[in-house]
Formats: sequence, structure tokens, C-alpha cells
Amino acid sequence: MNKKNIIITGAAGFIANSLIQYFLKKKYFVIGIDNFLCGTSKNIQKFKNDKNFIFYEIDLSNYNDLKKINKYKGKVKEIWHLAANSDIPKGISDPSVDFDNTFMTTFNVLKLAKTMNIYEFYFASSSAVYGDYKNKVTRETDPLNPISNYGAMKACSEMIISSAYNDFLNKAFIFRFPNVIGSPATHGVIYDLVKKLLANPNKLDVLGNGTQRKSYLHVSELIKAMMKLRNQSKIKYDTFNIGPNENDGVTVKFIAESIVKIISPSAKIFYQDSNFGWKGDIPKFRLSVKKIFNSEWRPKLSPKDVIIKTIKEVYNQLR
Amino acid sequence: MNKKNIIITGAAGFIANSLIQYFLKKKYFVIGIDNFLCGTSKNIQKFKNDKNFIFYEIDLSNYNDLKKINKYKGKVKEIWHLAANSDIPKGISDPSVDFDNTFMTTFNVLKLAKTMNIYEFYFASSSAVYGDYKNKVTRETDPLNPISNYGAMKACSEMIISSAYNDFLNKAFIFRFPNVIGSPATHGVIYDLVKKLLANPNKLDVLGNGTQRKSYLHVSELIKAMMKLRNQSKIKYDTFNIGPNENDGVTVKFIAESIVKIISPSAKIFYQDSNFGWKGDIPKFRLSVKKIFNSEWRPKLSPKDVIIKTIKEVYNQLR
Repeated sequence: MNKKNIIITGAAGFIANSLIQYFLKKKYFVIGIDNFLCGTSKNIQKFKNDKNFIFYEIDLSNYNDLKKINKYKGKVKEIWHLAANSDIPKGISDPSVDFDNTFMTTFNVLKLAKTMNIYEFYFASSSAVYGDYKNKVTRETDPLNPISNYGAMKACSEMIISSAYNDFLNKAFIFRFPNVIGSPATHGVIYDLVKKLLANPNKLDVLGNGTQRKSYLHVSELIKAMMKLRNQSKIKYDTFNIGPNENDGVTVKFIAESIVKIISPSAKIFYQDSNFGWKGDIPKFRLSVKKIFNSEWRPKLSPKDVIIKTIKEVYNQLR
Repeated sequence: MNKKNIIITGAAGFIANSLIQYFLKKKYFVIGIDNFLCGTSKNIQKFKNDKNFIFYEIDLSNYNDLKKINKYKGKVKEIWHLAANSDIPKGISDPSVDFDNTFMTTFNVLKLAKTMNIYEFYFASSSAVYGDYKNKVTRETDPLNPISNYGAMKACSEMIISSAYNDFLNKAFIFRFPNVIGSPATHGVIYDLVKKLLANPNKLDVLGNGTQRKSYLHVSELIKAMMKLRNQSKIKYDTFNIGPNENDGVTVKFIAESIVKIISPSAKIFYQDSNFGWKGDIPKFRLSVKKIFNSEWRPKLSPKDVIIKTIKEVYNQLR
């Protein structure tokens, strides 16, 4: 154990996967925590042989369960708190899901940080904190009017991080995530369509009429953006939207056609008449990225390249 | 029981006292709830003989305890949620105080509202949600960066009210309170000084050098402001700062001199050299009241009259 010890919560999730890889490559010692509510143990298996990785199955909504980690007291520099419910519809039907997994996780991890003298805190927040701004581009300073339990519990997490920063943290970053795609995917339009086409290579049924347009960020770019902010020394507490240029979007039609082209060029695509959202997808939003672009971070992949890259990755993951 | 049934939480507290009086006068049936953590049973006694008032001793942080109220299902029109920890320093030393009493109370009361088909929700929030804006006047749309557990838990309450409005409420008002004074006082500079002078009518020891300046709203004006907003029909969900004109403030010196003049004119006042805050007082802030002034509400009492009126009330309360 050296000074470069890091706790990552939600370690078995999609984004943590890339984050763990990043830190292991940089020779950090990573303590991963997950309860496998949303993440899969398969995602952890690949790191199990790495001597710089250790995993704890812990339910963060239960503070007592966190005591397993106490032995690292005084030895951990920072926490990356990514654990949350990721099944938004589930949180709509049962408010306790996001209360336990999206809010109490943050509450307990902050309590742990204070107990263990961990003074740096990085938080995966969400565009869902803004609520429904229709077509308006939202800036970090816009009022938060969340419309889902998930969004509300991410917003609540931000509020208690603010007071914890005033209380004991030396550094606290809140990152509001956009639609993030890449591998290992667990849900979303690309995942669903690739899965369908692998099951039946002759046709692809698309939900909606294909005109729905959204912008996406590749997980590799997300990690780079967060590290750029983390590695500067001036900012101690701040909130950042992370995303591609707010005007960059691709249609479902483009996604479907690209999938067919890559996986099964002879397949026929069938659309529906109506246009409705993809179940489990994050609601439409437009994040202003002026602030993070001012820090000189830019995504390098074009909007279409993000899609192509992800299709190939998810194809490799599922084939 | 008629259609005009109202639940008021924190019923034994200072502000609820005036609110209950208002609704009883208007012939509403009031269901009061408190756990006497901050409120006193004396405040409830005076309503106990009113046939339009019923009181339940309930700990709102424990949802099961709330089931005592279930029998009113379908019969209650609105909830005024005033219950919260009011001892800010206590919440600083122990985060669970505000978690239980300032946040879980709101979470459980919203859950109750949904179960009982109550569709109107009025919430006593606080200027503490803003955090430290130094001398800047804060508007309702300014970002919330709370610096205390109390402020964070009030902000969290606002966030879940936002999502509950989207889920099932027809009407949700968030009122951010200023320094509110009046009777029955339980703490604060006027309460402390009147108490001291009653104990020793010959001298009055003042904390600080007397130059500290703050603005105050009388509780009677607060009630009028909230009712003005409640009784219009256009707004369904909104947040309002309530307060006196942001530039109106009075000094501790003015307060001390007025107290001496009213209660014991021959007493001598002693100040200290340094200038520091009154323990238990809300930190300094300046609320923009442009928005509520646009609704045509204005406080009628001058800043100095608010102080004089309150001194007389607190004197009557404590003598």
C-alpha cells in the first residue's frame, strides 16, 4: 500500500469499469465497492487478479456494512462515488429505491469519508438534477427542479456534498453526466438494438420512427474530462456539466443503420409510426458545456464516431 | 369534519402557532402534529379546547408513527410542513439531527400525502439553503450551496418536493424564510435580552459590540405573505424568498436600547469589544424579495416597529 489509494463505489458498474482501468494503469491501489444491485460481478472478475485491486461487496445504504473498510483509515486519499440506482423507471414506481441507493449511499459514503479522514470527493451526478427544461440548454448555475426520484436523490446528494465540503472536505467535484455510452454496456438503445440483431440477423425492429435525436459522450472521453479537472490544483469545490457540444446529436435512424452496416448488412430495418422514448433511457436534455470547454477539455471523437466506436465495442461484448 | 381540513406539522413551534390561529379563525379544521423535540406542549395547550383542533404527538422521522393519521385519508386538502430541527448548532455537531428531523420528516410527510391523496403542499424552507453568499443579495434562482447540515437538509427537502410535484401534487409552494420574530419566542437576540433584563433590571449585558445589523420579519407578516401566495390560483409550483426589503436592517444596539426603554428605563447597557454572532441565530444573509414584492405583498410594519412590537410581545410572554 502506498499513498495512492482510492475508493471507487459502484465499482461493478459501466463507468467505474473505465475508471478502475485508468487508475490501475496509473499505479494506484483501488478499493472497489459494489452491492451488485445494478453492476455485475463479471465486471469485477477481470480486475481480481490485479494486485492493486481489492473488492468489497458492501451495501452502501447500510452504514454498518461500510465498517469493513475502516481498516484503511488514514490511508485513502480520495473517493470516487459512482454507486447509485441506474434503473430510473424502477425508482419511479418505488421511491425507496433511489432513496436507499442514490441518496443514502452518498450520505453514508460522506460519513465514512469523515470518519476515515478522506478529504477528496468526486461525485457522479446527473443531468437529471435539472428536471424538465424542454429545449433550453442548462448551465451549472440553473435552478434544480428534478422531476424524478432519481434526479431528486442525485440533487440531494449534491446538497450534502456542499455542506460536507464546508465541514471537512478539502476538495469536492460534482460531475453532471450526459448520456454516456461505451462498453461494458448494460442498457440503452445501442445495447438493445445490437442484442436484437444478434438474435435475428435478418431484421431489426426499432422502437419509434427513428427521428429521435440525442447527443452521446463516449465513456473514454468522460474519464479524460474528469481527470483534466481533477489534476488541476486551483479548484477546490465546483460543479461541472460534462458532455459533447450541446448541438451535436445523432438520430436513432443513424444508430440503427450503423448497427446493420457493421453487424448484418443485409438486415431490413422496421420503424414504428409514432415517436417515443427508449425505455430506460435518460429523458431528453441539453447540457451547456461552456464551463468545462473553458477548462480546455473537448471530446475528440465526432458525434458519429462515438456511435460507431460504441457499436463495435458492444458487438464485441455481446457476440 | 368538512372539506377544509389541514395538517400542520411542527404544530408546537413558534411559526405554526400563528398559522394555526389563522386557520382556526377561518373555520378550518386543523390536525396538528409535533414530537416536542423543538416545540413545547404549552404552545399546543391553548388550542386544545378548540373543537376545530386536534393534536397528535408523532415523530415524523418514523413513518410508522404517521399511520395514526391514516384515518383522515381522502379528507385532508393540504399540508403545511413546518416540522424541522431548529437548533442549527446541534445539527452541526451531529449530522443525524438534521437528517432525521429536517429531511426525513419531509420525505415521510410527502409519502403520507401521496398515500392520503393530499395534493397541496406548503413548505417552510430557509435562507440557509443558499449557503454563504457574503454580502450578495440572493434570488430564488441562485444556485444552492448550503454550508450547514440544516441548510443541506432543507435544500434536500426542496428537491424531493420538486419531484413529488411532478409525481402527484397539484400545488407545491416552497417558502424560504428570513429571520422571523414574534411570540411565542423560544430563542434569538430579543428573547435572550428580555430574559436577562427581567432577571436583573439594573443592567443589560449584550454579546458583541452592538453594531451587528440584521433584518427581521414579524411572524404576522410572514403568515400574510404565505396566504397571499396560497390564495391566488395561477401558480402551481414555485419557490419564494419571504422577507423585508433587503436593505432594511436594525442593529443590536437599537434592539438593546429599545428593550431597556420598554422594560427598565434605568438599566445600563454593557457591550463587548468584539463583534460576534448571537448563538443560535441564523447566519447573516440577504434575500432578494423582488419576486414576492411583484405579487404585491409588502410588510406593513417598519423595520423598527417590528422590533418594538416583538419586544412588547416577548415581554408579555416572559414577565
